[in-house]
Amino acid sequence: MESTAITDTLFGYHSVYETLRAGKRQVDILLFSTRRSGLRLEGIQAIASKKQIPVKMVNPKILDAMTPLANHQGIAAHVSAFPVKKASQVISDLQTRQDPVFFLVLEGIEDPHNLGALIRTALCAGVDGILIPKDRACQPSATVSRISAGAMEHADIYMITNTAAILRDLKKNGVWVSGLDADGPVSLYAADLTGNIALVIGGEHKGIRPLVQKECDFLLSLPNRGRINSLNASVAGGIAMYEALRQRS
Amino acid sequence: MESTAITDTLFGYHSVYETLRAGKRQVDILLFSTRRSGLRLEGIQAIASKKQIPVKMVNPKILDAMTPLANHQGIAAHVSAFPVKKASQVISDLQTRQDPVFFLVLEGIEDPHNLGALIRTALCAGVDGILIPKDRACQPSATVSRISAGAMEHADIYMITNTAAILRDLKKNGVWVSGLDADGPVSLYAADLTGNIALVIGGEHKGIRPLVQKECDFLLSLPNRGRINSLNASVAGGIAMYEALRQRS
Repeated sequence: MESTAITDTLFGYHSVYETLRAGKRQVDILLFSTRRSGLRLEGIQAIASKKQIPVKMVNPKILDAMTPLANHQGIAAHVSAFPVKKASQVISDLQTRQDPVFFLVLEGIEDPHNLGALIRTALCAGVDGILIPKDRACQPSATVSRISAGAMEHADIYMITNTAAILRDLKKNGVWVSGLDADGPVSLYAADLTGNIALVIGGEHKGIRPLVQKECDFLLSLPNRGRINSLNASVAGGIAMYEALRQRS
Repeated sequence: MESTAITDTLFGYHSVYETLRAGKRQVDILLFSTRRSGLRLEGIQAIASKKQIPVKMVNPKILDAMTPLANHQGIAAHVSAFPVKKASQVISDLQTRQDPVFFLVLEGIEDPHNLGALIRTALCAGVDGILIPKDRACQPSATVSRISAGAMEHADIYMITNTAAILRDLKKNGVWVSGLDADGPVSLYAADLTGNIALVIGGEHKGIRPLVQKECDFLLSLPNRGRINSLNASVAGGIAMYEALRQRS
């Protein structure tokens, strides 16, 4: 593997374990708390030894100081940046695929908990690629990797700048674009989510911006039996992704 | 309304607004930050005035001090305890219903974010009652109300002590009990979720305990296309509740 700058620090068992399994990042060193042990850490140690990655035992206070809010679970790793894909690769990757494609477009998610949960669900639901705007949106950070239980480490994430333009390109290439919107005129369960699809999820506060809504072939809503407004973005996105999976199975 | 002890303090717009709409709690006083204004607070002020609830303007630092971690959005309310229902009411409420019933049983959810999201989704999915253990589980607190975006204020929540015994009683009364389990032998999409149902969701770490699993008529799993273990509890629960709603519509 060619040498890459070590710029990120991952925390938590799942994030570090999935990073080692996925093999997409260069791992410089693993840090283990001297106060932790157990089968899970032994498993990681075995992989590290096979991959010739050094392991350093550190005082747990050092890990605490590195993660004021997060639970590091006694493990951290210095790693290279998460390898994102370029916007230009969306269409070229699409054109090389044989099977119907399933893209997830996250249009301005701001909360790392929602982004982590959406990426985790996307992996389980068989999403092929996740498109995230470079600006005004939560980025695929070490925190998001931890919240995604390491799922992010296996994901194909494309960083995009112009969501509307990408959706136009996708449509030209035979992809149906559906946006999830609390006021959408089409029920999620009336939509055909087989074939080549891109599912657009809006931000927590503003939903899908009008310019991006305009590029959606369909605006889909979830039925709501309650007296309250709407669902959490990561739950609504999860329900829509799994309805697509149900139809595609 | 009879006089009730004021024991709880709610924070955040949605939690306070839905409490006023639901009318289940006695509201003693509303606290508004002197630094906030806007249509949303004006709306709440109008309801308070109609209900003769006093409003006090306070320095935002007082609200900050009351909520070290949470965002209070410039509003708080001193209220009576959330009115939960007793375990013994589950069966009597069931027997008085005409329509098929949909209960959600949360078997040991520990994270208030998951509990809040599950309650919010339950309300939207048409769940009739939510059963929560009194011990070893996150309780329906002010924090959970805020995370649920106030949905908790409209929910029928039963506090139970013996989950297995309640499930036996439900089955005797014609309710089909399905547990959600990552290793469940039946696909969620192969299950019949119409009629009288109770859906059991396990805790984040241990899932559904064996003694409770034994009382489930079916153990349902979600399909998983990923290389990672499982979904977040609130997302998995949301997907299952909405599959039930889809089938029941």
